[in-house]
Amino acid sequence: MTDAGEFYHAGSRVVTHAPNPHIAFGNQDAWFGGAAREFMKAVITSTRLDWFQSAAAGLDNAALKTVGRVARLYTTNHTQAESMAEWALWQALDFLREGPVHRAQQEAREWKRVRAREISGSRWLIVGYGSIGQAVGKRVSLLGGHVTGLRRSPGPAEGAAEIYPLGLLLDELPKADVVLLCVPHTAETEGIAGAAFFSRMKQDALFMNLGRGALVDEAALLAALDEGRPAFAALDVTSAEPLPAESPMWHLPKLRLTPHDSPDTIGTILRADGTFVDNLHRYINSEPLKHLVDPKVFEDV
Amino acid sequence: MTDAGEFYHAGSRVVTHAPNPHIAFGNQDAWFGGAAREFMKAVITSTRLDWFQSAAAGLDNAALKTVGRVARLYTTNHTQAESMAEWALWQALDFLREGPVHRAQQEAREWKRVRAREISGSRWLIVGYGSIGQAVGKRVSLLGGHVTGLRRSPGPAEGAAEIYPLGLLLDELPKADVVLLCVPHTAETEGIAGAAFFSRMKQDALFMNLGRGALVDEAALLAALDEGRPAFAALDVTSAEPLPAESPMWHLPKLRLTPHDSPDTIGTILRADGTFVDNLHRYINSEPLKHLVDPKVFEDV
Repeated sequence: MTDAGEFYHAGSRVVTHAPNPHIAFGNQDAWFGGAAREFMKAVITSTRLDWFQSAAAGLDNAALKTVGRVARLYTTNHTQAESMAEWALWQALDFLREGPVHRAQQEAREWKRVRAREISGSRWLIVGYGSIGQAVGKRVSLLGGHVTGLRRSPGPAEGAAEIYPLGLLLDELPKADVVLLCVPHTAETEGIAGAAFFSRMKQDALFMNLGRGALVDEAALLAALDEGRPAFAALDVTSAEPLPAESPMWHLPKLRLTPHDSPDTIGTILRADGTFVDNLHRYINSEPLKHLVDPKVFEDV
Repeated sequence: MTDAGEFYHAGSRVVTHAPNPHIAFGNQDAWFGGAAREFMKAVITSTRLDWFQSAAAGLDNAALKTVGRVARLYTTNHTQAESMAEWALWQALDFLREGPVHRAQQEAREWKRVRAREISGSRWLIVGYGSIGQAVGKRVSLLGGHVTGLRRSPGPAEGAAEIYPLGLLLDELPKADVVLLCVPHTAETEGIAGAAFFSRMKQDALFMNLGRGALVDEAALLAALDEGRPAFAALDVTSAEPLPAESPMWHLPKLRLTPHDSPDTIGTILRADGTFVDNLHRYINSEPLKHLVDPKVFEDV
């Protein structure tokens, strides 16, 4: 399909007005391109949608849940974690290297050495050690940092020196120089980063959120930053998105905001294409698809 | 010795007014602390200076050259490369992730996704593949980047996919997304980054300098940035340091300056201590010291 919302027969220039797809790939263009509405309409009105490959990892989106009820097979994609991990390194380095101080000095034409900190030797607490947590943890440990991951279930944990259950959160927070949230948003994790959480952090630590805005009690975060513990926060997600213009979070010097674009790189698009093509091979050969979602997940919505 | 310039007998509280050291370690405090002058005076007036351990890698400093003529043995230190390599990752990520655009949007309360680039898959050209070049190259390749190193002589080249001679500089520049200068300053390399150099770079590339300011023709760099090739520059060193307040480089939006502080971390101090202690063991045991400088280097000054 084109950005104008026209559908073509595959491999031809023949326009069709009734695409009725039996396979659909909801890539980045399908959600953020000019024809997102037409794409969604074609998918959910299909009378024969056998398989939907999402470019997203999560299901906490009304449109995706609707698709999940229409498609016989629904698969997710987890490769956006690579770009998100580079976002985490970027934010951590800008904090540890005193980016704001350096930029203010340059603005003031002031040549004064600033003592910085390193990822090497830093201690990271990664709350939620799934695909994003592992992509971050792997990089941090390669760069000489120490990574503790928190996760409900055991399983592969590349990059982590240790994996503990989520219940140890308050015990682990005081040890970390960098704390990253990337746990899924559930009833259990909603508001997990509140006053008690921030009061257990080191004064000179960085708090980052790559999960969902609802994981953070934003009033508690603002109060904590105001009191000076933690030292800084970097958020790619907020409880309301887009963040309303009147929010006090925009202009807090100790808060760096990005507009939920941590996965937004060409690399992410190409890796999602790779996931689709890999699954397409499996589909054609009648092999089990990767990252298949249990249909029951969509029943109780 | 203390920051007030008082010397104590080792392991005691007894002040001496004639330290006359036979071993001296010029650590970061000795150069940037309050008693740098007293330290240097004690070192160069010593009548029995057998060994001087420098915390610096280079010798292009008049004070160090004087010490080199006084000391029988003179050793350098190359561990500041670790912190400098994190500086390079920081600057590269802030460029690739569109740090300036993100900060301007936050300032304007604008929630708009920005497409970023990744270190993963990026191509780096590292001009000078010694201790700094290797420390950077190792990290970039661990993060999925492709590293080409340029160096006069063969030798170990951890992190580089290939090592070419410096003569291939102009052929390699057009392939690189990130170009880093960290070659020593010699007659051959002075002004190596001039108009021809910049004209061979990619339009959307980043230029960084972690070597010496004299490697760059600064007028050519300003003209190149103005013409839009390369896209951005990050410099930790300038031809005049401190950079004069009237320099046009301070306020160029496409130029990030840091005040020659890329090595300035606690990690650097601890690693330099490690170099000294390691060499001290060797000295005590009459083993050859590491990073010993040929005394001839100091003769022709």
